[in-house]
Amino acid sequence: MKLTILGCYSATPRAFTNPTAQVLETKGHLFLIDCGEGTQVQLRKYKVRFSRINHIFISHLHGDHFFGLPGLISTFRLLGREKPLHVYGPKGIKEAVTLFLKLGDSWTNYLLIFHELESKTSELIFEDESITVETIPLQHRVYTNGFLFKEKPAPRKLNIQAAEKWEIPRTQYGAIKNGADGIQEDGTIIRNVDLTEDPPKTKSYAFCSDTKYNEEIVPIIQSVDTLYHESTFLESEAHLCDKTKHATAKQAAQIAKISKVGRLILGHFSTRYPSIELFKEEAITVFPNSELADDGKSFEL
Amino acid sequence: MKLTILGCYSATPRAFTNPTAQVLETKGHLFLIDCGEGTQVQLRKYKVRFSRINHIFISHLHGDHFFGLPGLISTFRLLGREKPLHVYGPKGIKEAVTLFLKLGDSWTNYLLIFHELESKTSELIFEDESITVETIPLQHRVYTNGFLFKEKPAPRKLNIQAAEKWEIPRTQYGAIKNGADGIQEDGTIIRNVDLTEDPPKTKSYAFCSDTKYNEEIVPIIQSVDTLYHESTFLESEAHLCDKTKHATAKQAAQIAKISKVGRLILGHFSTRYPSIELFKEEAITVFPNSELADDGKSFEL
Repeated sequence: MKLTILGCYSATPRAFTNPTAQVLETKGHLFLIDCGEGTQVQLRKYKVRFSRINHIFISHLHGDHFFGLPGLISTFRLLGREKPLHVYGPKGIKEAVTLFLKLGDSWTNYLLIFHELESKTSELIFEDESITVETIPLQHRVYTNGFLFKEKPAPRKLNIQAAEKWEIPRTQYGAIKNGADGIQEDGTIIRNVDLTEDPPKTKSYAFCSDTKYNEEIVPIIQSVDTLYHESTFLESEAHLCDKTKHATAKQAAQIAKISKVGRLILGHFSTRYPSIELFKEEAITVFPNSELADDGKSFEL
Repeated sequence: MKLTILGCYSATPRAFTNPTAQVLETKGHLFLIDCGEGTQVQLRKYKVRFSRINHIFISHLHGDHFFGLPGLISTFRLLGREKPLHVYGPKGIKEAVTLFLKLGDSWTNYLLIFHELESKTSELIFEDESITVETIPLQHRVYTNGFLFKEKPAPRKLNIQAAEKWEIPRTQYGAIKNGADGIQEDGTIIRNVDLTEDPPKTKSYAFCSDTKYNEEIVPIIQSVDTLYHESTFLESEAHLCDKTKHATAKQAAQIAKISKVGRLILGHFSTRYPSIELFKEEAITVFPNSELADDGKSFEL
């Protein structure tokens, strides 16, 4: 899994800070998560091969998370896209985007499929043979979801040396790869686990922006490898969290700690602070393995 | 009049080329003309004091001319704007923008007034004591207007030396400023023109993007000081003009020539060409006083 941050600042786009968007590369997919204004320019700037994006996940319908979507969809059309594009986001997103396209008489010449979300509990919204995507209901000023990306375990790998040692007939190798035990010529059973190796460890990534401090998400994101959690404010501005329904760096770290995640990435920074290093300094006092997102930064997960 | 180009490239925004937007500063106004995605970032980049923008003119509802509008309107809200904002654009613009704001539960806390346009003939859409703005109906794939900005002449200036020479009583000075003739003590009339000076020459600016070659606009833009006319293509791609309803640099120059304008500024360049200098080279063969727009470039008109 590789995560590239295209934008991780809150509210308005500025010359050197971009609103939320990121791409997650995993198992042959290039998932786009949120799409603030200017996302298509950021995709070009960081040389993301964005024709590979087939699935876009929108957390909520505030401008800094989706005003770049009509433009990206239009650009796909201008670039001659033919593959279907799936957009997952809050109810209303279909009407808004299609109205913009209709006004410009700019219908896509590819299939544009909206998956509108309105559930207040976590639901599975995407699944294929290698990965699942589930929603993480968040508490913000408008209906908002985070997204949990979980790789599925690959099949166990046949250990040929073990199979030969135990004199398992080659005709059984296919069945063993699919989970069957081995049977020696005399009928003795050799357990599958003794004939196969563990597949590579699966990875998981949870994206949680924007939200107030909310422990209800803990069971959903429990033990994920990497958690991206918003930290719009520092504790010195904690009094703004109630009204704006945002979190502080310390609160993000607290969620990371009680969820026992492997790593925390902080983002959605207010631009009121002189340096984003302050967010890390605050978070590591609670959760040492905290890192900072920044526009253009990539993480190997 | 001062014109600042924020973006002058066609179709999709890229790392170093921006879609159409420009600001015209005249008579205390800062008019924004078109608002492609990323316009608010360009406004910041070129240090335009954009809280001074009270009137936005949108030519048509293709993405590269208006997808930056919801973001700019939202940013005005975040910056605490209180003054009303007037938006002039094709019918449908109000529904589209308000839907985007509604979805984000982000109503403006200032008055947002839409002036929807649907006339196919030129109409006066803004007027105050110093300037008028009229539409220039263009021929594009969707309903499109250019905009003609014309300063009104200032009052004639009293020539005090002349008034003293002709021994005109001071009590008449106010009336003379307002156009009255002077009357000497013996009743002799001195013509107003001999007692006053011409006011500064008024300026006019015509913005025409996007459009195919269309001589119907000539009577409207006749003799303007500066014409911005789209030149998406060079003559080598003239065969694309019919389908896309765009113009070449040579066609733009032809319109400038028969309209007897003072200066032509070319823009809306397709990014397919290695250099925009090619547009100027083509245009000056027909209309010598042709110049190139470019992102960030300012013109004193």
